[in-house]
Amino acid sequence: MAGRRGLIELGSERLEAFSDAVFAVIITIMALELRAPQGHTLADVGDDLLPGLIAYALSFTFVAIYWNNHHHLLRAADRISGAVMWTNLFLLFWLSLIPVLTEWLSEEYRYPLPAAAYGVVALVAGFAYTLLVRALIRVNGPESAVARAIGSDVKGYASLVIYAAAVPLAFVSPWISYALWVLVALMWFVPDRRFAR
Amino acid sequence: MAGRRGLIELGSERLEAFSDAVFAVIITIMALELRAPQGHTLADVGDDLLPGLIAYALSFTFVAIYWNNHHHLLRAADRISGAVMWTNLFLLFWLSLIPVLTEWLSEEYRYPLPAAAYGVVALVAGFAYTLLVRALIRVNGPESAVARAIGSDVKGYASLVIYAAAVPLAFVSPWISYALWVLVALMWFVPDRRFAR
Amino acid sequence: MAGRRGLIELGSERLEAFSDAVFAVIITIMALELRAPQGHTLADVGDDLLPGLIAYALSFTFVAIYWNNHHHLLRAADRISGAVMWTNLFLLFWLSLIPVLTEWLSEEYRYPLPAAAYGVVALVAGFAYTLLVRALIRVNGPESAVARAIGSDVKGYASLVIYAAAVPLAFVSPWISYALWVLVALMWFVPDRRFAR
Amino acid sequence: MAGRRGLIELGSERLEAFSDAVFAVIITIMALELRAPQGHTLADVGDDLLPGLIAYALSFTFVAIYWNNHHHLLRAADRISGAVMWTNLFLLFWLSLIPVLTEWLSEEYRYPLPAAAYGVVALVAGFAYTLLVRALIRVNGPESAVARAIGSDVKGYASLVIYAAAVPLAFVSPWISYALWVLVALMWFVPDRRFAR
Repeated sequence: MAGRRGLIELGSERLEAFSDAVFAVIITIMALELRAPQGHTLADVGDDLLPGLIAYALSFTFVAIYWNNHHHLLRAADRISGAVMWTNLFLLFWLSLIPVLTEWLSEEYRYPLPAAAYGVVALVAGFAYTLLVRALIRVNGPESAVARAIGSDVKGYASLVIYAAAVPLAFVSPWISYALWVLVALMWFVPDRRFAR
Repeated sequence: MAGRRGLIELGSERLEAFSDAVFAVIITIMALELRAPQGHTLADVGDDLLPGLIAYALSFTFVAIYWNNHHHLLRAADRISGAVMWTNLFLLFWLSLIPVLTEWLSEEYRYPLPAAAYGVVALVAGFAYTLLVRALIRVNGPESAVARAIGSDVKGYASLVIYAAAVPLAFVSPWISYALWVLVALMWFVPDRRFAR
Repeated sequence: MAGRRGLIELGSERLEAFSDAVFAVIITIMALELRAPQGHTLADVGDDLLPGLIAYALSFTFVAIYWNNHHHLLRAADRISGAVMWTNLFLLFWLSLIPVLTEWLSEEYRYPLPAAAYGVVALVAGFAYTLLVRALIRVNGPESAVARAIGSDVKGYASLVIYAAAVPLAFVSPWISYALWVLVALMWFVPDRRFAR
Repeated sequence: MAGRRGLIELGSERLEAFSDAVFAVIITIMALELRAPQGHTLADVGDDLLPGLIAYALSFTFVAIYWNNHHHLLRAADRISGAVMWTNLFLLFWLSLIPVLTEWLSEEYRYPLPAAAYGVVALVAGFAYTLLVRALIRVNGPESAVARAIGSDVKGYASLVIYAAAVPLAFVSPWISYALWVLVALMWFVPDRRFAR
């Protein structure tokens, strides 16, 4: 615990606490970007609030799934490393771009470029998460709890493939991208069943 | 603690920490939406700041009651589950809409629609809280501390009924809704008496 | 720890964590209200940034002193109560108004009303802190560590008197109020000396 | 733990928790200052988003390095003091100015003054960090883990010298300052290698 060598033995508590705070700010700051309607009729709500609200609900779900998986991942890890610290920050950086992309999407959701941009960030965030998983397995060993909990990580790689497909397909129609993202979200809801007993 | 099976045993510490951070951001972000008066006279304060300040005070109280109850609820729980994680996120989602509704209400408080919208969010948040309570009782068992602490949950259901009534009544007069919300708030201040000894 | 009776025994960990998050958001959100200068010359900085920066530095110090004292206060407390929960929330409510008042002050610092308004919030926050101290002493007992740590609380009461004086004196000149606040701040820097050994 | 004397023995947990929350808010609030492009073409992205995005990425890295070092520093410390509390707050104050400077820089990056202003804040933050290190060594003793972990602190002093040079050199060309900051960032990435094993 003490001295230069002691620094190598890091617990994950503070990493989790910092990540939780970043997740919490990201998720609630998106709600702040929602604009209050400029009026008091249903038409004002439809124009000003509804697209933003739907985009917010999707992004909230997206970030919530990450928080949920991140929670389980670090729970299963006994040790962290400098590589874990930096891949974690790399992941948080890309997730922190979600609010501004959500704002953009809520205004320009009919066009390919905002959808493709959101898709690129989703893809890189997924890639960063994969790096974080690899860094955790490297420091905890291939027989560790975290390595066994991850397993062959079929879902992780499937998500990356779907996200990668969603980027060019946004230029065919942004609605294809939206459908693919909902698909990935549904896929990730399933594993939490095992905690529900 | 380790391996796939270990993931089933989740403590509530990180769930509490994340929820606390979300509650804290929601509650302080509302203060950020208050606009500084555009001048230095009492009239400027009355026009620019006062309605927002009252709406903020009410919403602060609303969120503070939730935080307080959430605190006691999770303290009494020994175990959490995937269902607890997701009902908790569902609750936080609806509470995160309070700031934008507060901003809307502070500008359009004389009209039924903003009051009804606030009422719908209050109702769904109350419903989400009930789901969270049920999920906690399911994972901790009917004889658990959390089940006994909740009891028959008369106040929880009474709140839902009053919130449900406040939505259509906003179209009679928004002031009826405001009175009903204050009633629910007062109702929830009482149980904390037992901690005051 | 379990059941209705168990709820009476509350530790202060989560209260501290929640308060810390609120303090952290308040203190950093003020920095967000600083406007980037609309230009790249020294004159732009002087017009746009400097008054806001000074107001921010003072409010940062104001909130930092509260956080510091709050930290020491709850460290010395073994037990909390419902009254502690609510007086703490009451304190946080008033402190959460500091950012909007800071923004107002940075624009209208030459006028009495913003200075008086800031003074009222400082006074009520000081009063709320005194309520929190009383609630903690009531639940921990007059012989408790927290009661002895507070002692006769001369500084607490002196602060309230000075804050109360600063409100009407703002109408003589706001600069008198500013001088009195700096006086209170200097007064609170002293007790931390005992931790410096 | 109890009474006046007990206050002298402070653990670093709550200091870390509060600092983490401030770091988290600073780092994510910068993302909030990014403006969504006003359109849906690549040209809109280039005009509206790109300079802000690059400035954000640099500032994210800057704050992330501080968080990382702060994390290791306090991990190695067994005791804190009032001086530690205040030098830590002093550091957080200067870091909290990074978001507004990032916003300014993203708009006026071609001019010397914003670059010099950023450089001054980086320099004072580096100086504050050095004060924090000294305060920690003073309270933990010259033979303590934290003192040995810091060692002769060559990198800390080298950073200060480079930051100091970057301020006047911004008036030759702001791009010299940017290059020097990247140099400091690269320098700090290296020590984390020792955690990567």
